[in-house]
Amino acid sequence: MILSKRITAMQESPIRKLVPFAQAAKAQGKKVYHLNIGQPDIETPSSFMEAVKNFDEKVLSYALSQGSPELIDGIRQYYAKHGMNFENDEILITNGGSEAILFAIIAIADPGDEILVPEPFYTNYNGFSSAVNVNVSPITCKAEDGFHLPSKKAIEEVINTKTKAILLSNPGNPTGVVYTKEEIQMLAQLAKEYNLFIIADEVYREFVYDGLEFTSFGEIKEIEDRVIIVDSISKRYSACGARIGSIASKNKELMKQILKLCQGRLCVPTLEQVGAVELYKTSDTYFNAVNQEYDKRRKIVYEALQTMPGVLCKKPTGAFYVVAKLPVDDAEKFVVWLLSEFDVNGETVMMAPAEGFYATPGLGKDEARIAYILNEDDLTKAMEILKIALEKYPNKTI
Amino acid sequence: MILSKRITAMQESPIRKLVPFAQAAKAQGKKVYHLNIGQPDIETPSSFMEAVKNFDEKVLSYALSQGSPELIDGIRQYYAKHGMNFENDEILITNGGSEAILFAIIAIADPGDEILVPEPFYTNYNGFSSAVNVNVSPITCKAEDGFHLPSKKAIEEVINTKTKAILLSNPGNPTGVVYTKEEIQMLAQLAKEYNLFIIADEVYREFVYDGLEFTSFGEIKEIEDRVIIVDSISKRYSACGARIGSIASKNKELMKQILKLCQGRLCVPTLEQVGAVELYKTSDTYFNAVNQEYDKRRKIVYEALQTMPGVLCKKPTGAFYVVAKLPVDDAEKFVVWLLSEFDVNGETVMMAPAEGFYATPGLGKDEARIAYILNEDDLTKAMEILKIALEKYPNKTI
Repeated sequence: MILSKRITAMQESPIRKLVPFAQAAKAQGKKVYHLNIGQPDIETPSSFMEAVKNFDEKVLSYALSQGSPELIDGIRQYYAKHGMNFENDEILITNGGSEAILFAIIAIADPGDEILVPEPFYTNYNGFSSAVNVNVSPITCKAEDGFHLPSKKAIEEVINTKTKAILLSNPGNPTGVVYTKEEIQMLAQLAKEYNLFIIADEVYREFVYDGLEFTSFGEIKEIEDRVIIVDSISKRYSACGARIGSIASKNKELMKQILKLCQGRLCVPTLEQVGAVELYKTSDTYFNAVNQEYDKRRKIVYEALQTMPGVLCKKPTGAFYVVAKLPVDDAEKFVVWLLSEFDVNGETVMMAPAEGFYATPGLGKDEARIAYILNEDDLTKAMEILKIALEKYPNKTI
Repeated sequence: MILSKRITAMQESPIRKLVPFAQAAKAQGKKVYHLNIGQPDIETPSSFMEAVKNFDEKVLSYALSQGSPELIDGIRQYYAKHGMNFENDEILITNGGSEAILFAIIAIADPGDEILVPEPFYTNYNGFSSAVNVNVSPITCKAEDGFHLPSKKAIEEVINTKTKAILLSNPGNPTGVVYTKEEIQMLAQLAKEYNLFIIADEVYREFVYDGLEFTSFGEIKEIEDRVIIVDSISKRYSACGARIGSIASKNKELMKQILKLCQGRLCVPTLEQVGAVELYKTSDTYFNAVNQEYDKRRKIVYEALQTMPGVLCKKPTGAFYVVAKLPVDDAEKFVVWLLSEFDVNGETVMMAPAEGFYATPGLGKDEARIAYILNEDDLTKAMEILKIALEKYPNKTI
């Protein structure tokens, strides 16, 4: 039986493909510190489960295709607090941010079209695009620049008549970069000049450190018909398993068209929306506490990395990730070695090799993403283990 | 801003597009009997919510991309009871049957490829296909034949080098047909001869009446590498709002490839899977009771339709739908008239015009789908109202 070219060409998740090695390590009795996935250990606000437990309808029936009116209104209010004025019919609820991205790509690009993405990028951007025959054109960003954008001219060189949009996460996964107001305005200008959409994945909006100002594409009035904001409660409220995301745009024709996709899959789970409504009522003090917690973890990781010879990493300023250049031959081999052949008193660490976050072949081979989603003690220990590992790894390059 | 050709070409849901007329009718104080949607009024087994309420983890974290091992095992056991022997890695959990169909289409067809679908069909087959640039080639079935399949030769005429699969629901939505063992074997033979996949949407497996035997494609050993079974708890356990579906195939390479799509969207909601595990433990007496209830409703609808002059409809034998040929100029206009200009003591009915269930232009214009998902009293009243409406409709054809 012959499968489709698009499915066989689709990249395997670089984050999940080394899981079997971790399982084998655990089967041998090793403790593995997971720095490879973005699953926070922060407690989900209890209001979610309380609302779910109070659900007392006898029939668990379909929700509306566009999403529950209460949840849409909650998200509208959330955006209003952040200076973005969406109307309720400019917001659709999706199965996680994932579905929001997939729907946005389908709605703005036909097979053979291209979407610009700063690399390294959230790997599923590539997966979704190739599943629906859209090509990712990478804008290469460098560890040496803290993964900030290259010049406008460099980006213009990648744009052609097939280019339909710029897709990016800000704050950045996997890099932890927070783009400056100037960078955002430069992209807005490019979108106008070249008639592009901007798909802005802003799920880490609250996770910005060092007092930096976060600029959303939703604040730039003159490009409001070309901005699509992708959002999710997964990281914001540590509710990854709820799979509640959303898509928002002032472009009403776009939203009307995406609604057809929403109708095609009928609806997003009823109960999860009931819970999510309450999460959007969470007070800002929650974010302050969570932000402080991540900030402490960020410092632990960043400062530890600075003490490791040959490691290059600019200070990350957002989300809860950092991509570090490591003094190894191949980060994937290094991670496999960490899991299969190395331990410190029965403990080891796992990271996500960064090669899969790049579209340009060969880039990122000596880089890895570290997610700082463990508590301070575990994180400190994990970084100590990483330091020893880099000293002992047989194929180190220094 | 220019949107993609594929999204603008995508058909709007024929089931949902008349909803504004129903809302207007209700705003005027009319009572509307909804025969237009497949939302059952049967209670969801309480075990679902009990399990959800007992969930007590502090962090609502990601589930595994392939689905919860407990749920997969529950589904494996369910299939085993039905004579199908899947292994656990031959089953993936999806966001409803909808996502299962979308993933199956992406995995077996590239842009420009074709999928054979008996028409009238579940309208979203067309929606999903066109969203990912796959064309539906209809196999036309007729009301006069009770929507059974045409001859093998007639089907062969639609097959060409672009044809990759046959996609069908059995028992049939919207027709209520249950294909005979001979029909299933004929399709299996075609699949072998022309090297096609079969995507078998069997979500109504339990809803078969008149003592008919249901034949699953999963029972035919010689084509097991080309059969993809799509399933869902939505109708089986009246849990439409849970959005839990699944995809099963003995073709391990196919499942490995579809897992990449599952990884791309990370996971299906954790809580819904916790509830669904319990549903799969529901005893068979539940199905017997539900089946009897639908059977009573089926008889009410079928017998009432037989008393309406000019209405053509063979007895439906499965699911909870029937497509009837009506003596009207245009079923969509008729439904709009029912909602906007007609009532019997302040009450009216709504059905789904069938034209949107066909891919062949012009077909189904005088047909409508009736879902028998109301209790006996309401259904009886609704059919009385329909009978009067057909007498009074100004553009009737008899």
